[in-house]
Amino acid sequence: MTYLQKLRETTPLIHNLTNEVVMNFTANGLYAIGAAPVMSKSIDEVSDMASISSGVLLNIGTISSTDVEAMLLAGKAANKKGIPVVLDPVGAGATPFRLETCHRLLDELNITAIRGNASEIAALIGENQWQSRGVDSAGDGDVVKLAQKAATSLTCLIALTGETDVIANQNETVVCLNGTPLLGSITGTGCLLSSILTAFLSLEGPNVQKVVEAISVYTIASEIAVEHPHVEGPGTLHPYFLDALYTITPEEVRKRQKVETR
Amino acid sequence: MTYLQKLRETTPLIHNLTNEVVMNFTANGLYAIGAAPVMSKSIDEVSDMASISSGVLLNIGTISSTDVEAMLLAGKAANKKGIPVVLDPVGAGATPFRLETCHRLLDELNITAIRGNASEIAALIGENQWQSRGVDSAGDGDVVKLAQKAATSLTCLIALTGETDVIANQNETVVCLNGTPLLGSITGTGCLLSSILTAFLSLEGPNVQKVVEAISVYTIASEIAVEHPHVEGPGTLHPYFLDALYTITPEEVRKRQKVETR
Amino acid sequence: MTYLQKLRETTPLIHNLTNEVVMNFTANGLYAIGAAPVMSKSIDEVSDMASISSGVLLNIGTISSTDVEAMLLAGKAANKKGIPVVLDPVGAGATPFRLETCHRLLDELNITAIRGNASEIAALIGENQWQSRGVDSAGDGDVVKLAQKAATSLTCLIALTGETDVIANQNETVVCLNGTPLLGSITGTGCLLSSILTAFLSLEGPNVQKVVEAISVYTIASEIAVEHPHVEGPGTLHPYFLDALYTITPEEVRKRQKVETR
Repeated sequence: MTYLQKLRETTPLIHNLTNEVVMNFTANGLYAIGAAPVMSKSIDEVSDMASISSGVLLNIGTISSTDVEAMLLAGKAANKKGIPVVLDPVGAGATPFRLETCHRLLDELNITAIRGNASEIAALIGENQWQSRGVDSAGDGDVVKLAQKAATSLTCLIALTGETDVIANQNETVVCLNGTPLLGSITGTGCLLSSILTAFLSLEGPNVQKVVEAISVYTIASEIAVEHPHVEGPGTLHPYFLDALYTITPEEVRKRQKVETR
Repeated sequence: MTYLQKLRETTPLIHNLTNEVVMNFTANGLYAIGAAPVMSKSIDEVSDMASISSGVLLNIGTISSTDVEAMLLAGKAANKKGIPVVLDPVGAGATPFRLETCHRLLDELNITAIRGNASEIAALIGENQWQSRGVDSAGDGDVVKLAQKAATSLTCLIALTGETDVIANQNETVVCLNGTPLLGSITGTGCLLSSILTAFLSLEGPNVQKVVEAISVYTIASEIAVEHPHVEGPGTLHPYFLDALYTITPEEVRKRQKVETR
Repeated sequence: MTYLQKLRETTPLIHNLTNEVVMNFTANGLYAIGAAPVMSKSIDEVSDMASISSGVLLNIGTISSTDVEAMLLAGKAANKKGIPVVLDPVGAGATPFRLETCHRLLDELNITAIRGNASEIAALIGENQWQSRGVDSAGDGDVVKLAQKAATSLTCLIALTGETDVIANQNETVVCLNGTPLLGSITGTGCLLSSILTAFLSLEGPNVQKVVEAISVYTIASEIAVEHPHVEGPGTLHPYFLDALYTITPEEVRKRQKVETR
């Protein structure tokens, strides 16, 4: 049985502490793939909510000081329960506050995986040749080496996504080559992927394989959607991408998947 | 004239104190059906905003302590003005904070109606055989009895929605049997229904009939949408459901409506 | 080269301090037209974020006291850097708090342009014959005179939008006559326009011409979208409008543009 099938059978509940821009898209995307979302950033309940969940997603896209406290509480409850905690360091290099927040979360919590673009991953390990522009990645370079360096430096599974997606821990590196550039024209597609990774990571099995399958499912769904005759731009891609996440089969993933071990 | 026609003629302004996940969908859905939305949770203005509105919706989906204070202020202004106040107890059983918040709102305000799924309604009256899972309902049981018990216990109109929708006050019970399961794959469809109920309740007439018509209009719109040849999943259902709310006629409601008095 | 082409070449980063209802739509719309969005209302980083941006948008749609402080910080950083600051006074006349907030922002910041409907612009200059209803405009009158009066009184570029769009500063007045009424059934279409105006204003050139072109591009995209055979209501207009913003050409704008100097 694939991880996608296991996910759809178990519908893991994912507690998202995420930014206001992508909350709706994230919730709809988690439902579409077969998981269940819950959203809460209130310090009055984040520990309780994390404790009834199967995974916790921390996304700093519109982070405030209060949100940082909520993330620490939810992350600690998740660590105590032994469920995965995924960090999405949105725009980590854009402001000092975002970078400090990421380091604080990495210091005080046991983070299972980090999903970010090249600029964000580079910012986390002080690689200044990578540039960010707001929350988007800019610059070009060897993303495989960057992901490997970050995995070693942060002792954490890294999912560096972009034109090429790189999954690296301290021992293994896998590259995924599916996807469509148009997906980047929809806001929150990286954020939703981070939430979906959290759902896959909540299943039994080795983390690298689960993340590779999750990224393949996600990017192949975007390929299927963009090929739909009704898709004419980013606006129409949005509903058809959600449909593709809902309807994609393990067979379609197997046929289209482009994965290389590095 | 049906309540739908009256609503479209008067376009009632509904003040929504709701969660960040569904704000956009709620606003678009209220516009589509023919009402007008306003959103504010700032304690600096919620009383003023409620005072110029025709109804107030309190939805605890991403509630914080500050939001509770805002809801009390808006609810009291609405009670003073004599306009309906609807409570959507999202995930009431998920955390102690949510349950305490619901009880505080029910104690301090005059709530016109509560719209929730079976798990949420059960949590409000301490029926522990019903289970919740995050913000989704789980478990199975006699929803008619549950709604009736809640209506008596909370002395409030109950709209318990799910596969079967039950509308109950202390004297009457009506069951609505329209709808499509796929609607549950879109986040916020329960939340939007609560806002639309608030709009219908702001019209002149008996509350049970207004709520029954609102639920029929809403669920029949979902049937019309899901039958559209372009709808292939939850992603495409979203725009066509909003279109159906916009175009649905009293005639279509009359033809398809499945309602039973219990 | 048109401003649209310049914008797509330079993809200006726009810092949006905007309401929770429209964040997702605003981000997707900015990406679609060819700009880049960033959202932050945290006082811990708004100055830094404004300093790396090309323009700042202040939208009071769900304003709180904390947000006002963030807007002042971001606006001052933008003024210092010499980039445009656009105010969207959503529902300015709906509550005293909103009106006071607008006046405070106008007093303490150098605002480049204000984009609002007739009721909102009227409220800002104390014209009581215009009525607002929540965040929507109500009432009828001479919008050209109203915009001119506001431009003089507030010494600021005014973009008054509605059935007729009026762009006025103290010396010039231009009227734009494109668009479709159905666009008003989607929440946040005024808000997104304000963000897009900010992106156009960040380019080199005279402000009135940039705003006129931005409004023409936006309203003509809505005409193209509503003519699409798959658009049957506000729900389907949403994705096709985003597609039209993404695909619209300077040639299409030139052919359809209806602009008059007054």
